[in-house]
Amino acid sequence: MKNFITKSQSAQEYECGYSCDNALLVKIDGGLFFITDGRYALEAKERSRNCEVIEGGDIFSQTRKLLRKSGIKAITIDPLEFMHSDYCAFKNKLTYIYFHIVANFHQKIRSVKKESEIEKIKTAVNENKGAFDRFADFLSKEGLNKTETELHYTAKGFLEQNGKRKLSFDPIFAIDENAAKPHALPTNKRLNACSTVLFDAGTRYEGYCSDRTRTAFFYESGILFDAKQRFPNPLKQKIYDLVLKAHDTAIESVRAGMEAMELDRIAREVIENGGYGEFFTHSLGHGVGLDVHEEPFVNKRNDLTLQNGMVFTIEPGIYIPNEFGVRIEDIITLKNNSAEIL
Amino acid sequence: MKNFITKSQSAQEYECGYSCDNALLVKIDGGLFFITDGRYALEAKERSRNCEVIEGGDIFSQTRKLLRKSGIKAITIDPLEFMHSDYCAFKNKLTYIYFHIVANFHQKIRSVKKESEIEKIKTAVNENKGAFDRFADFLSKEGLNKTETELHYTAKGFLEQNGKRKLSFDPIFAIDENAAKPHALPTNKRLNACSTVLFDAGTRYEGYCSDRTRTAFFYESGILFDAKQRFPNPLKQKIYDLVLKAHDTAIESVRAGMEAMELDRIAREVIENGGYGEFFTHSLGHGVGLDVHEEPFVNKRNDLTLQNGMVFTIEPGIYIPNEFGVRIEDIITLKNNSAEIL
Repeated sequence: MKNFITKSQSAQEYECGYSCDNALLVKIDGGLFFITDGRYALEAKERSRNCEVIEGGDIFSQTRKLLRKSGIKAITIDPLEFMHSDYCAFKNKLTYIYFHIVANFHQKIRSVKKESEIEKIKTAVNENKGAFDRFADFLSKEGLNKTETELHYTAKGFLEQNGKRKLSFDPIFAIDENAAKPHALPTNKRLNACSTVLFDAGTRYEGYCSDRTRTAFFYESGILFDAKQRFPNPLKQKIYDLVLKAHDTAIESVRAGMEAMELDRIAREVIENGGYGEFFTHSLGHGVGLDVHEEPFVNKRNDLTLQNGMVFTIEPGIYIPNEFGVRIEDIITLKNNSAEIL
Repeated sequence: MKNFITKSQSAQEYECGYSCDNALLVKIDGGLFFITDGRYALEAKERSRNCEVIEGGDIFSQTRKLLRKSGIKAITIDPLEFMHSDYCAFKNKLTYIYFHIVANFHQKIRSVKKESEIEKIKTAVNENKGAFDRFADFLSKEGLNKTETELHYTAKGFLEQNGKRKLSFDPIFAIDENAAKPHALPTNKRLNACSTVLFDAGTRYEGYCSDRTRTAFFYESGILFDAKQRFPNPLKQKIYDLVLKAHDTAIESVRAGMEAMELDRIAREVIENGGYGEFFTHSLGHGVGLDVHEEPFVNKRNDLTLQNGMVFTIEPGIYIPNEFGVRIEDIITLKNNSAEIL
């Protein structure tokens, strides 16, 4: 892509190794310009690479100046990145430039990962698994009778490793019927023996995200965040096994060349055939990289072709309101045409 | 305001006591509708008040359906809340409805606070001060030779009180020349005796934010986050005192009925007259409430009239690149025509 403007911090990070919350990155004929205000300019100059840093009180007017001077005729812009008012600040004042409006264009540029990026994601995934294990150990020994809120905070401690790592997102720690809310907030509900626990969390390594969910039964002897789980209640076991089957089927079936929506369909059919289709209320998965949710989005509508080198989650779920929820999530990459679980 | 659409979580929280990251709140003839997807619908029904919860896979098409059915002719929308693509999803498909485009309209509705809101902000401010004091105590006893990154993480622990409180924003902890970047990221720079420390942090109480900055000198005997500071270096003392003078002058001068830009001018003149105008690179302050940055924005351009009951920061600063930075920030409310420091 010859010319583009991006406000996405992940895109800026990718292109020039630095980003902040008030900057525009402009690519013109292969040259990169990082436009930011006085609060960030110094740091941008120190930390960025491959780009020229331009300081301006109003980054939009500064960018218009740059575009006018460049004499370009067309530029790509992502309508999901710009507030309507910001978009107008370009479009209405630069009428002689054609704006190609392409949603997620930069995520698409980044969707096939380099080997070095996959290595970073693997490191993030492994560190994240380590935090899951240490948290399971803590829950087994000291979790009983603590609240979701307390345990949510404790989990963050294990994930952050004393501030060494940033989180991919605020983790979800939900007990029993609270797990029926796919994005539950922690409450004062307490962990009992015989609780079911849903834990969804991810950490970053050099900007790259991990993302993992386990649903596990809390026995008196403790808890393990394994994919195999035994539930004393046969209905819960049936629902759990159905989610696991959808998860495993998706991982076995995925191939390079398949459309994202086809893969969503394969997993969804497993749950529909088991009689729980209406309780699988979200998409099968999403790409993971510098953004925790990025292309390829694996949902009912996305006809993007899955390719070797793409990295995305497989995370089917079943949520029975007021009762119980299950989600199992792993990250895979497509390699030699089939899935490698990271 | 009879009819509006808002995507702002603060506006949703204010109007109906609940919010999430994929919802639209619509007000039609005084009635409130909270439109969200299946991931949040259950929680929305449990936790919201004063509104009808509507579940829809695509919240934009669900909202269009609602607007069509209502028969309204005009509605207010904030161009700063909606991505360009989302805005088009309304505007281009509902051509018979007139969209009043008003930036920050809901922040303006909320800008004059109720007594009960000011009480919550006071609680947040007092808890935040407590965390500053405990952090200063920790720095005095154990801070020496620790890195910015470690101390930034430790500070968060004091602010969060074991997960009891959420942060208004990721705090800034910067030593010496790093403090010359108004939004510095923590580095591996270590705290020495004779370091200058800038600490900018805030916690929330029932959603309402606090926000405070102190710049302090680290003696062998320790550190105190007081507004009065003694620096062995006379140039640093001069700069510090100039920032403090701008801060105090703004607080003494502010009156209800004054325009926000007038107040910015008063403080800026103090720093300009002291010879450091070019190093005060940001605005004087901003409103604080459910958003940590909201109306009234106290900058060079905002002609909004300051009124009794408004709550905002006063935070002048001087930043000498690669050397030294000072910012002093407090929250005030206008009461009986003049400033009360919270």
